[in-house]
Amino acid sequence: MRVFGIDCGTEITGFGVVESEDGARQPRLLCRAMGVIRLAKSTPLPARLDQVFRELSAALERWSPDAVAIEEVFYSVNPKSALKLGQVRGVALLAAARQSLPVAEYAPLKIKSSVVGYGMAAKEQVQFMVARLLGLDAPPQPADAADALAIAICHIHTSQTLLAQGAAR
Amino acid sequence: MRVFGIDCGTEITGFGVVESEDGARQPRLLCRAMGVIRLAKSTPLPARLDQVFRELSAALERWSPDAVAIEEVFYSVNPKSALKLGQVRGVALLAAARQSLPVAEYAPLKIKSSVVGYGMAAKEQVQFMVARLLGLDAPPQPADAADALAIAICHIHTSQTLLAQGAAR
Repeated sequence: MRVFGIDCGTEITGFGVVESEDGARQPRLLCRAMGVIRLAKSTPLPARLDQVFRELSAALERWSPDAVAIEEVFYSVNPKSALKLGQVRGVALLAAARQSLPVAEYAPLKIKSSVVGYGMAAKEQVQFMVARLLGLDAPPQPADAADALAIAICHIHTSQTLLAQGAAR
Repeated sequence: MRVFGIDCGTEITGFGVVESEDGARQPRLLCRAMGVIRLAKSTPLPARLDQVFRELSAALERWSPDAVAIEEVFYSVNPKSALKLGQVRGVALLAAARQSLPVAEYAPLKIKSSVVGYGMAAKEQVQFMVARLLGLDAPPQPADAADALAIAICHIHTSQTLLAQGAAR
């Protein structure tokens, strides 16, 4: 199973591709790719959204994942930030939809507890565990790419749990 | 000059195409098209965003406007609504960007004062004036299409003022 995680941001959007070996009892997780899309503040908004759409679409096409995983948004941000983030998120969801990919959404607490085992984990703990689970020498940089990988890992863990529950019935 | 106005909403997005005769001293405004995109709540979000993108892109292609005009968003809404609206708005801006169309944004107060002459005008006054300015027998229905036409009219009025100011120099 190959999952494409997306961590949306108004300035930097991270993405990461994680693959799990099918069929293994304790499937190994592999990091296939990671990257970030950096938006220049000086670029007009429509052109920035077009950049996010083009770069995400190209990465989705290249890695042809089985699913896309994305963070459910924190509602504690203010309306102005929420609107800006929503614009980027809408374009990211559209990129997935246009390639007919299923999209799963996960709350931040769920992602942290799936990767670290603790919903209130600090950002550094998440990055450390992402590196460990993917067998990387160091935490992925920048943090936005690590967050995207964490979202992808969360989706794989969740899918495996659902499969295991199905098998146990 | 032909302007494509968009009124984004999480359930209904309205659009309207307004044309002004070039060169005339008191240019007549004509309504070329109007419509709404209705989203079913039961449809998953990525598919809903895809619908907005497809329908807006098709309308933009059909009417090939000189510019797209869209409302600047009200920041008084709560973060949850702002995020949802932002997702639709991001996709609408992307549709314009992908056809290399210039996008102008106008605050609600500016739109009302441009159409009615009074920034705090009620919705019904805006609809009445939209019908009057476009020579329509009745206010356009639904209200979302009328709002989109109002945004397009605002852009035409603003462009004409800028042109007149340039000519007067």
